[in-house]
Amino acid sequence: MVFADLEARAAALDAADPLAPRRGLFHLPEGVIYLDGNSLGALPLSVPGRIAAVLREEWGEGLIRSWNEAGWIDLPARVAAKIARLIGAEPNAVLVGDSTTVNVFKTLDAALRLVPDRRVVLTDSGNFPTDIYAAEGLAGLRAGGFEIRIVRPDEVASAIGDDVAVVMLTEVDYRTGRRHDMKAITAHAHAAGAVTLWDLAHSAGALPVDLVGAGADFAVGCGYKYLNGGPGAPAFLYVAPRHLGSVTPALPGWLGHAAPFAFDLGYRPAPGIERMRTGTPGVLGVAALDAALDVFEGVDMAVVAEKAARLAGLFVEGVERACRDLVLAGPRDPALRGSQVSFHAEEGYAVMQALIARGVIGDFRAPDIVRFGFTPLYVSHRDAVRAAATLAAVVNERLWDEPRFKVKAKVT
Amino acid sequence: MVFADLEARAAALDAADPLAPRRGLFHLPEGVIYLDGNSLGALPLSVPGRIAAVLREEWGEGLIRSWNEAGWIDLPARVAAKIARLIGAEPNAVLVGDSTTVNVFKTLDAALRLVPDRRVVLTDSGNFPTDIYAAEGLAGLRAGGFEIRIVRPDEVASAIGDDVAVVMLTEVDYRTGRRHDMKAITAHAHAAGAVTLWDLAHSAGALPVDLVGAGADFAVGCGYKYLNGGPGAPAFLYVAPRHLGSVTPALPGWLGHAAPFAFDLGYRPAPGIERMRTGTPGVLGVAALDAALDVFEGVDMAVVAEKAARLAGLFVEGVERACRDLVLAGPRDPALRGSQVSFHAEEGYAVMQALIARGVIGDFRAPDIVRFGFTPLYVSHRDAVRAAATLAAVVNERLWDEPRFKVKAKVT
Repeated sequence: MVFADLEARAAALDAADPLAPRRGLFHLPEGVIYLDGNSLGALPLSVPGRIAAVLREEWGEGLIRSWNEAGWIDLPARVAAKIARLIGAEPNAVLVGDSTTVNVFKTLDAALRLVPDRRVVLTDSGNFPTDIYAAEGLAGLRAGGFEIRIVRPDEVASAIGDDVAVVMLTEVDYRTGRRHDMKAITAHAHAAGAVTLWDLAHSAGALPVDLVGAGADFAVGCGYKYLNGGPGAPAFLYVAPRHLGSVTPALPGWLGHAAPFAFDLGYRPAPGIERMRTGTPGVLGVAALDAALDVFEGVDMAVVAEKAARLAGLFVEGVERACRDLVLAGPRDPALRGSQVSFHAEEGYAVMQALIARGVIGDFRAPDIVRFGFTPLYVSHRDAVRAAATLAAVVNERLWDEPRFKVKAKVT
Repeated sequence: MVFADLEARAAALDAADPLAPRRGLFHLPEGVIYLDGNSLGALPLSVPGRIAAVLREEWGEGLIRSWNEAGWIDLPARVAAKIARLIGAEPNAVLVGDSTTVNVFKTLDAALRLVPDRRVVLTDSGNFPTDIYAAEGLAGLRAGGFEIRIVRPDEVASAIGDDVAVVMLTEVDYRTGRRHDMKAITAHAHAAGAVTLWDLAHSAGALPVDLVGAGADFAVGCGYKYLNGGPGAPAFLYVAPRHLGSVTPALPGWLGHAAPFAFDLGYRPAPGIERMRTGTPGVLGVAALDAALDVFEGVDMAVVAEKAARLAGLFVEGVERACRDLVLAGPRDPALRGSQVSFHAEEGYAVMQALIARGVIGDFRAPDIVRFGFTPLYVSHRDAVRAAATLAAVVNERLWDEPRFKVKAKVT
């Protein structure tokens, strides 16, 4: 199936695309259209060389001296400053390390301590489950516990009552792409005496995020999706500077101590965001993320978001024109969603396997969502149109109806 | 300074050393004698090639498919099985991931839940401070809190009273090298109705450890010291299988869920050790550790420990013969210590800097400890003798007495 008119439009858009040259900064497999950068970003070409140098020169030759001489000790702070620019944070308010889940645990505890007289954490059913699991773990630990109140995404604003301590949301829904209005919800939460914890897993590196402008209190995010830090890359967390002085870390560790190398038996928090650090950062992962973030140098996130909307728009137009069996999941209006679109699809798992076998990689999310992420730094408008044509062919011609496409892998 | 007799003995020992060929598995800088493998192990030569393949082939070409096709999802379990052999653990009782500090937090909470009627965590002043900080954090969170009782290392056995819930110790003291008797203390703790949490940071890969034989309940350990996993490598934790069924994770996360890809809003723990997992493992760090652990293939840890004792013995003999200003810190008997020796040294910081400038790398621990780790897979007997001669020269000839050696670096 070919969409001649869409192809022509896409070609014109590609020719005029200021981000087109960025594609050359990535390794992309031959014959693959990659629409799963919202699960694992593609490999920036700067990463292998950087990591080889970290291994051979810094670790191999420098050994323990590299904590000082190669600047390993300050590396997480340098990476945090790069991320801060992408999410509209103050430069010294971001910490890189641990996993997103651990960071939810840390920041949710810190948030709860700011509102000691309330016992409700409000979240929605579109949050990524691990955030809720971390909250469950914390509720089981904390004296008195707390209630985790889960509402539908569209009910969040009205559910912010005066018993809510923390509004904990993922800005962009991992399945449908629906985007919360961070500024409005944060203002609403503050007016009700609550604080906010935003998970930026599907926002950072995808959309313009303005934590300062929104007045956000806490945030966390993922290093391996739109930030392209590699599989299981270190995550990050944000604490608004106005809260930092009063934050007591739930998970204190030696590198968050005011004087780590004094080896005191008692904990004293470091003055700044470092107090939220727990153990020794994984240098390989942080260095890979550092090199990866260079692809964003000089990039205006508003331009990225505009292109993402065009990519997704072309894709949806193509799919809907050719294929009536796929129903859009989530908002049609790009202003209301993140950098992805999803469709409900019967036999969605097999559909996605068949699509991958034809070189278009998206992913499947139970129970019936086929999901496509648009990463404007390395996806072209023509990619979007061709992916739509391939998806329509897979569905219309029932190309998914082979036993091999129905065998579930461990990671689905 | 040269010790002709010690050099001759060392040469003979090197010639007969069954571990000598292992040195060829590591990258070691020219002109350096590296006695800091207890802080950061040397680079195994297998690591750069493995990581290059993970980057180019698995991440770059395979992209998201590599979770299944390159086996990323099972990689932590394969690494855990390698570590299990080195620490005498059951193969399915070890989990790789997070930092040691986070793992102390997780396992200490699990241990406390086993003894709900007691409120004392007993530790000693030789424990690495971060373990105590993690306990402080947990005490601040847990309903009712608990007391962290810190005694001197030699008082531990007599301090295990019937109010103690958990005996939390690092087997080998990071400063003095003094080694606790894990089996005796564990038996003592059990007799008193307590459970044990052992930090193996300075044991795993250095000494024969027998968690099963000792009847240990919980353990944690570090990937970047004797296991050579690289700076900030993933850590590990151990839960005795008899406890696994009743362990509720303090830090639950999506990859510890019984069905991670069902994306349920409520947490249900995985049946086995995986329930202790929180977030997505950092694949680069886990892969580096995996490749690094191959240097232990076929190695008998008893042979490693015997060589370590000989290396340290030669070093102490040389230092003490030549230099009266250095006083041994910690036990003289190798059976009572780990794979390191330390000396009290006035101006120890400057002494260590001067020593490093002469190609012998150990490290300094406040207030006055110069510390030397012996890693038998890549340190020779002649290295030990030459290091002793260099240290004696630095002290006797006051070679440390230059301003440049007294300027403290960030990491000291």
